[in-house]
Amino acid sequence: MVTKNKSLPLGFHDVSAALDGSRGRVTAWDRWLARKLLVLADRPPVVLVLWDGEEIYEGRGTPVGRVRVRSRRALHRLARNPNLEFGDLYAVGALEVEGDLVKFLETVYTSIRDGGGGFLRRRLARLQERPRPNTLRGSKANIHHHYDIGNAFYALWLDRYAMQYTCAYYPEPDMTLEAAQEAKLDHVARKLRLKPGDRVVEAGCGWGGLARHFASRYGVKVRAYNISHEQIVYATERAREMGLDGQVEYVEDDYRNITGTYDVFVSVGMLEHVGVPNYPALGGVIDRCLTDRGRGLIHSIGRNRAQFMHGWIEKRIFPGAYPPTLREAMDIFEPYEFSILDVENLRLHYARTLSHWLERFERHQDWVEREYDRAFFRAWRLYLAGSVAAFTTGSLQLFQIVFARPRDNDLPWSRAHLYGS
Amino acid sequence: MVTKNKSLPLGFHDVSAALDGSRGRVTAWDRWLARKLLVLADRPPVVLVLWDGEEIYEGRGTPVGRVRVRSRRALHRLARNPNLEFGDLYAVGALEVEGDLVKFLETVYTSIRDGGGGFLRRRLARLQERPRPNTLRGSKANIHHHYDIGNAFYALWLDRYAMQYTCAYYPEPDMTLEAAQEAKLDHVARKLRLKPGDRVVEAGCGWGGLARHFASRYGVKVRAYNISHEQIVYATERAREMGLDGQVEYVEDDYRNITGTYDVFVSVGMLEHVGVPNYPALGGVIDRCLTDRGRGLIHSIGRNRAQFMHGWIEKRIFPGAYPPTLREAMDIFEPYEFSILDVENLRLHYARTLSHWLERFERHQDWVEREYDRAFFRAWRLYLAGSVAAFTTGSLQLFQIVFARPRDNDLPWSRAHLYGS
Repeated sequence: MVTKNKSLPLGFHDVSAALDGSRGRVTAWDRWLARKLLVLADRPPVVLVLWDGEEIYEGRGTPVGRVRVRSRRALHRLARNPNLEFGDLYAVGALEVEGDLVKFLETVYTSIRDGGGGFLRRRLARLQERPRPNTLRGSKANIHHHYDIGNAFYALWLDRYAMQYTCAYYPEPDMTLEAAQEAKLDHVARKLRLKPGDRVVEAGCGWGGLARHFASRYGVKVRAYNISHEQIVYATERAREMGLDGQVEYVEDDYRNITGTYDVFVSVGMLEHVGVPNYPALGGVIDRCLTDRGRGLIHSIGRNRAQFMHGWIEKRIFPGAYPPTLREAMDIFEPYEFSILDVENLRLHYARTLSHWLERFERHQDWVEREYDRAFFRAWRLYLAGSVAAFTTGSLQLFQIVFARPRDNDLPWSRAHLYGS
Repeated sequence: MVTKNKSLPLGFHDVSAALDGSRGRVTAWDRWLARKLLVLADRPPVVLVLWDGEEIYEGRGTPVGRVRVRSRRALHRLARNPNLEFGDLYAVGALEVEGDLVKFLETVYTSIRDGGGGFLRRRLARLQERPRPNTLRGSKANIHHHYDIGNAFYALWLDRYAMQYTCAYYPEPDMTLEAAQEAKLDHVARKLRLKPGDRVVEAGCGWGGLARHFASRYGVKVRAYNISHEQIVYATERAREMGLDGQVEYVEDDYRNITGTYDVFVSVGMLEHVGVPNYPALGGVIDRCLTDRGRGLIHSIGRNRAQFMHGWIEKRIFPGAYPPTLREAMDIFEPYEFSILDVENLRLHYARTLSHWLERFERHQDWVEREYDRAFFRAWRLYLAGSVAAFTTGSLQLFQIVFARPRDNDLPWSRAHLYGS
């Protein structure tokens, strides 16, 4: 099922040139530029080690991280647009972070955020690229970019229970990834109060693990939509193997084309790809397909305040992605008077999930470098490590939002059923 | 402590005239007006019984309610502005509802809301008065109007445990009001993860029951603010009686004047009186007074979509009140990057709380009519019954919002601690 990639899958050809730049003596201009970069980043406790070994430091306390800059060209590219270039330069090896990558990124995130209205932060905000639009065709291209890399690639480091490429749930923090993903699916199922025979529609089903779990454990019927071809093929095969093909149907189509009538709507990890301008349309789909007693849950990465996705992540990893604030998410529900019953923030659960993924991913470095290449491996390592840091430093949130029709009074009197044995 | 009210406390003098209007024969014009009124209200299953006994009905199925219109003048006032006049006419007895008042109001709310974009609904929306502004002086007047009616009056029908004039919490639906108010205070305390020695600030403390409960049961220190003089006097006396005066301090001042540094911010049932334009200022107060590890909870009536308070309630009962949507509430949190951890909707709990209040209130009809007057009793009965109906029909919500500083990672791994024994 893996497609062998002949070319650099993320297209770092032009960046690789940064490796070859002059490695001659560090000049006064290089030194000034390196210092300026650190000052404008609100003086993180990080040492820049230049290509001839010279160390530049502008932090206030003891340094907690060191970055090797391999060439003059790398320094100059970094200074031009640190937000976008750091990732590319790291991927091709023109920058090297010494020590723990997650800790380093947490340090930098914290420093830049503590700097408040610092110049670099404002500059970063300006330089962020707007997410690429999620029209029907744009969504297809955006999703293909990320999710059709190869099922075997994701199988290396996602949980073996249900191939969940979304935040797990660790009611006990020392759970395995597999146990936590299973716990997440049960947590969502309990929030939705699934009953045998319920008709469930899922928007954005990944490799279909939630649908299979719901069908096999809760006796519901699930129709699950996804526009990633490779994922739908995988999901359908697995359901057939499990003898669930009568209960689960995977449809290769956009959520906007959902048809039918359902008791339950669920979407785990799709909203990030929808785009705020499409939220009222998503709400319309939910309103159209849910019965008068219908209920639903949306699980999504979010923000405390609105800002674009990190520019490099949007460019290289997740085209079109945008994690909304709760305020923005209300564009889905308000036009249809859906009643918000429960919002839970699982931020630290995503940090833990990502740590588990990163650990497994790094164990398969050889495989990934062989199948793709070294830059691809390093880019993904940076993306996973940076995501851990974004959740631990509170730059990203994870919201589970439960909603229902406004007049449905068949509600549990407490949330204790989520915490029963 | 009760102030004997010499005058009609709600000022129904002009409305009383509606009782005296001509009770002569019903004319074609009266009949046309009565029909029109029902049609424009989206044909609720309600019979209007005119002063000479003639019955008007425009509903589609079997009638479920009957309203007696005592005079021509009452009919004409009602037709002019049903939203505002219904309450006043009911208060003075110019309208009489046969049978169960709550059921009648639920029927009408449901009918008008189902009518969707019906004429009357749009007209009602236009006729709603904007809430009176909550400037420092405006708030004082608005709060005095409602909360300084007399402590003895509220003591008649609020719970004897803590005089909570806010939504109780019924994890077991057959709990008494007292048990449910105590459960509410514990639910809030658990959500706030109170530890002995925590410094708590409360904005809008009512009769001070939460502060006393927190101090006596959780060993925290509470400074509680309120601008209602009668409530502060009562709260301070009770704390002294309970020997809590070292741990609880009641301050007669506006939330905007909160000083000091706290581990916990809590506000139960004040946000409704703050006004959306003041939300960023409220957020600023919270940001200023909370430590770097601070956390908080706001408990408030809310809406699924933005609309003004019912005009008559705003005019006669709660000047300046406005229940926000979740989107509007985000104006408090976003400017300071507070992280929303948990939102729980307790809509049906408020319906039950109000039913308990209404039942007790009606038991004291004689006392209330003697101390105030009959119109006052009937106005409050309508307000309590209408509030039950607003919560059961989903027109009002009750949100508890838990928030924390964005980078505080000392968070519980699940909400199971809210549901322990």
